[in-house]
Order: sequence, then structure tokens, then C-alpha cells
Amino acid sequence: MERRDFLKKTGAAAATVVAGSAIAAPAVLAKEKTYRWKMVTTWPPNLPVLQTGAERFAKRLEEVTGGRIKIQVFAGGELVPPFGVFDAVSDGTVECGSGAAYYWAGKVPAGQWFSSVPFGLNAQGINSWFYSGGGLELWEEAYAPFNVIPRPQGNTGVQMGGWFRKEMKTIEDFKGLKMRIPGLGGKVIAKAGGTVVLLPAGEIFTSLERGVIDATEWVGPLHDLRMGFYKAAQFYYYPGWHEPGTCLEVIFNKKAYESLPKELQAAVDAIAMETNFWSLSEFEAGNGAALQELITKHKVNLVRFPDALLNDLRKLAKETLEEEADKDAMSRKVHEAFKKFKEQIGVWGSVSEKPYYDVIADEYSLKGQ
Amino acid sequence: MERRDFLKKTGAAAATVVAGSAIAAPAVLAKEKTYRWKMVTTWPPNLPVLQTGAERFAKRLEEVTGGRIKIQVFAGGELVPPFGVFDAVSDGTVECGSGAAYYWAGKVPAGQWFSSVPFGLNAQGINSWFYSGGGLELWEEAYAPFNVIPRPQGNTGVQMGGWFRKEMKTIEDFKGLKMRIPGLGGKVIAKAGGTVVLLPAGEIFTSLERGVIDATEWVGPLHDLRMGFYKAAQFYYYPGWHEPGTCLEVIFNKKAYESLPKELQAAVDAIAMETNFWSLSEFEAGNGAALQELITKHKVNLVRFPDALLNDLRKLAKETLEEEADKDAMSRKVHEAFKKFKEQIGVWGSVSEKPYYDVIADEYSLKGQ
Repeated sequence: MERRDFLKKTGAAAATVVAGSAIAAPAVLAKEKTYRWKMVTTWPPNLPVLQTGAERFAKRLEEVTGGRIKIQVFAGGELVPPFGVFDAVSDGTVECGSGAAYYWAGKVPAGQWFSSVPFGLNAQGINSWFYSGGGLELWEEAYAPFNVIPRPQGNTGVQMGGWFRKEMKTIEDFKGLKMRIPGLGGKVIAKAGGTVVLLPAGEIFTSLERGVIDATEWVGPLHDLRMGFYKAAQFYYYPGWHEPGTCLEVIFNKKAYESLPKELQAAVDAIAMETNFWSLSEFEAGNGAALQELITKHKVNLVRFPDALLNDLRKLAKETLEEEADKDAMSRKVHEAFKKFKEQIGVWGSVSEKPYYDVIADEYSLKGQ
Repeated sequence: MERRDFLKKTGAAAATVVAGSAIAAPAVLAKEKTYRWKMVTTWPPNLPVLQTGAERFAKRLEEVTGGRIKIQVFAGGELVPPFGVFDAVSDGTVECGSGAAYYWAGKVPAGQWFSSVPFGLNAQGINSWFYSGGGLELWEEAYAPFNVIPRPQGNTGVQMGGWFRKEMKTIEDFKGLKMRIPGLGGKVIAKAGGTVVLLPAGEIFTSLERGVIDATEWVGPLHDLRMGFYKAAQFYYYPGWHEPGTCLEVIFNKKAYESLPKELQAAVDAIAMETNFWSLSEFEAGNGAALQELITKHKVNLVRFPDALLNDLRKLAKETLEEEADKDAMSRKVHEAFKKFKEQIGVWGSVSEKPYYDVIADEYSLKGQ
């Protein structure tokens, strides 16, 4: 044991130096403080991949920074209401939050394009837009007036079309249909004559079972199985035209983010991106297993939306997007950028992903149906 | 200014404490040393996304660790020959390397499944296998006898089928065809009666232009445009059945990786994953733009391989994979795991990605063709 004097330049801080390595430790700055942050989310406690993804973000960030950032994660309602997350981050009540941009559409209409666009980009497409097509910069611009900095933190992949208590044959069948469906998808359903119902997660199953609503969408097999919807509705429709690759977000109070040293900002960005793709992988792998269980154990009736019905929804979606884009300048700017990038991806996808799926189409079939 | 005594528990280490923040600096370890590593790659200098991706990995790792790891990156041949990368990492000549697992198929046959499988998983599928389906653990097992630790570090997405000097109508057209094509894809072409030629990157264009070879595959529009292949061959075929989502790797000498403190190991893993998806995004965005240029400026003739030809190649690919899997126990184990996961992804993809691409098929079309 030896004692040394250390020169400390500032403040009332106490620092403990414990050189734990047998290898020679060189001169290094030790100006480190521990950042203890709070994160609030929109998700119920323990919700797989979504809430557990937010918790994973905190855990990995602590690991990668050697404990320099410790984030305590609160599920929806534990500290602030689920839909109060954006405000809590914006006003600095907490340093960060996790949710999806369409939850704050009332406050930031342009945000809708960064979560999910009906008949829009899938996971691979929207992530390419964020990281290599200018999408993330636009998102930062949209949130800047609120002192909020966004990062993609997850992606559900293509969702399912939803659970219906009756068969859907034509667009007419949406007339008078009471459906739980949020975001732009809900606006499309309303345009088709449906009644859009918003319900807290805990009330959806009972409402569907009792016929208070006729249909609901949720996420995909992994989450839908857990909710037990197969006991309350006969028809499980695909594909999820309304959410083809929904992006989940982690958001930071600008002042808090900027208070971090550069290397910790870099760590936050890296772990957000890591969690983004970890979550997509979890969804892909988990949905496959859950779907098999729904088919073989619960004999679920999987039905593809008819082509004509999808085409009609698509026309309504296009109208809806143009109307939404007309509401403010930022929405228009984002919508035009989104469309432009979608075209670029479409050209490339026409000789890559799309024809490749066609070639191996027979491996993409529902066994047991 | 104040002086304090600090208790130092071990070793001959010297530590300098400079509290640079005006904010209270709390207790923190200062046992840090700077790791100065070398990375060797299989890529030519400045090769977009591939070599620049390896350089990005080094840069981001330095950023995220506040300079605690500094990696000097050497392109193929600068320090060791391109195909000497695995050995150099294995024997500790350097701490890490970047390439693709099929380059060391002679040494680790099972490695082929971790780079690219003809008619195998696309980028989203193989990444789900790595991170959420046990794929990465198998990969670690395959490399363990060589004291090498692998991490996915990039993905090309679906590649192009290649440049051909003649039209390919049936499988018979491969008989006697001289084609530059590596890996398992090359074995399939050989089985179809073709002559597989391996050439350094710098010799491919001239060989194709002079008719020394009849065909070559490379990567996708972004890289193929740069190589000028459109000047040497008339037909640009798709889709790239032989490489539907090629994974690029970063590999570490086991002793070097394990010498890192836990938080730096976590940083290495996070930045490898970040770079993996950054690269896929760059490929997706970049290929779209380059393809447009090939079509509109260079009037390239894009041709889809005929269905019957693809089906014949697929049968040969299946035979090839079984033969390769029979060569050693690890290959068989990996092949069976790969097939099983592919089936799981196929079931889920049959109601998600595949039908979604079908719904928006008209947006996936080649304009200007």
C-alpha cells in the first residue's frame, strides 16, 4: 500500500482512486462524474422488447461507460403518465424518455413520419433513411423547438393487420367498424368510415371480448399472443399496412444531453443504435416462434387482407398523408423528403429485396394452416 | 486549490487526476491505460463502406471510449496480405482484423454460413439469427480453436447477380462459362459446369473487358459503378441469389479482447453492432442512387435471371450446402441451426415482409428502363 498526494484543481468534490490493474496504468484524466438520470417510458412494466428494450438501453449504457451514466427507468404511469413522456423530457422533469413519435402527434405533427407511415418504409428502409438518407437530421429539426433530441431506439418490423371479430371482404366493411388503432392508420380507418377508439393497453382485451370494439391492432404475434386476443376475435389479418416498420424512440432533454462529455454523447448514440437493431432482431425471432404457437396450439385463423381492400386503403392513406402534410410547414418538408427517399429505396429494392423474396417465396409459407 | 491524500491499493501505477469540470466530480476509478491496436483488413484502400467501415469502427471506438482504444487500420496488403488477415489475428501479430468469413473457408469451413449462404437469409434474417437466434454463439464456437472472437461488422444487403457478356437463358448457359465468383456461390457455379476464376480486385475489370472471363459478380451498384463494369459487359443480372445478405466481420485476437476491461469489451461490441447497421444503411441508400445513375447515364441493361434458371441454381445450391456440411462436424451443426432458424423466419416473413413487398410492388419498379 502506498499513499500519494494528488493535485485537484477545482471544487468540493471527493475522488477515490483505486488502481485495480496489475498492468502499468498511464496518465489519464479522471475528471469523471457519474450521471444519474431518470428515464420515463410509455410502456407497461415488463412489456417485452419495448419496456425491456428501454431497460436494456440503460443497462448497456452503464456497462459501456463503466458506470459513468446510471439511468433509472420508470414504466408508463410510474412517474408520469404514458403520454406525458415527451413533455417531461421537454421541460427537464427527467433527462430522457422512451416511446414512439406518433404518441405526440398533437404536439409535433411531423413526428408521425418518424414512427410509422401507412404503406410507408419497412424497418430496413426507414433505418436507411435515418442513418444514411438525412431522416435523423430532419427528426432533430422537428423536435428542436421543444429542446428534445431524438434517436431511433427500436423497430417492430412489419406489424400484423389486427384482430377482427368479423371477416373483412371489402373497404365497405370498415363502415361503422369500431377499431382500436392509433396514429395515421387510425386516420385512414376513420376516412373509410370506421370509428377509431383509443384504449389503454389494459382495457383492450375485455373491450374486444365483449364486443365494445369490433377489432384491434396491437403489435405482432409475440405481443398479441401474450394479450390473449385469439380468445376474443376469430380473424387475425395480415399484413400490417398501417405499421410496416414502426420506429421506437429514445428522447433526451437537450440540456441534459449536451451536458455530457463528448465520449458519453457518443456512447448514448451507439447504445441507442445497438438497441434499435437488437429490438428488431428480437421481434423477428420472437414473432416467428409466437406465430407457430398461435397456429398450432391456438388454431388461429390467419387471413390476408384482399388485394382490392388493400388498394382502397392505400388510396385513402395517400389522401390522409397529403392532408396531414398540409397542416404545417415541417410536416410538408418531412413528407416530401420521406417520399423522395422511398422512391430511391424502391428503385434499388426492385432488383434486390423484392425479387429475392419472390425467388424464395415457397419458403415463406404458413405451415400448419 | 486543495490537496488530499488518496489511497491507492495496488501496483506501480501512476495516475494523474485533473478535475476539469466545474460540476462536483465524484468518486471514480482512474486505472485507465490507452490500448493502441492494429487492425488489418481484406479490403483495398478507401473501398467505400467496406474499408471506410473498418476505419469508421476504429474512429467511433476511439470516440466512445474517450481515446482509451486507438486502432490504426491497415488496408489489404499494407501490413499483411488480404487473405492473411485471419492468421495475423489468430497468432496475435495484430489485435484485430476486418473481412468476411468465407475468405477463410479453407481453414474454418463452418465460417461460410456466417458470411453468405446461396438462397439463404437476407440481412434482416441473418442479423436476427446472430443477435436473437444463437447464430453469434455458434460463430464464436467455430472460431474458438483459433483464438479468434468474431463480431458482425457490416452487411451488404442483397447483392447483384453479376455482369455477364452474354445472355443467360437456362442453366446450360453456365457450362464452360468463366466467372469470377467466390465462396459457396462459386461452388454452385462450378457444379453447373462453369469455370470459377479467382482474381484480385485490380484485375477483374481488364479480364472482363478482354474476355479472359465471361462474367463477374462484385457487390452492388454502389461498388460496381465505381469498377466501371458497365463498360465491359452488356448484361447486369439480378437478384444476387448467391449473396442475399453478406455479413462482414470484425475479428479479435482472444487474448487482446480479453485483456480489455469489461467496459471496453462492451464498447467494442456496441460499436461493431453500430457499424454493422450503419453499413447496411449506407449500402441501401447508396445502391439506390448508383443504380439510377447506371440506368439513366450509362443505359445499363438490367435483366432478371429467368425463374427456371434460378430454380436450377437453387437445387444445385442445396446439394452444395449438404456436401459442405458433411465435411466436418461443426459445419453440420451450423448448417442445421441455420436451416432451423431460416424456417422460423420464413413462417413469420410469410405474413410480414413478403406480403408487404407484394402489396407495394408497384413502387418497386425500375423507372427509366
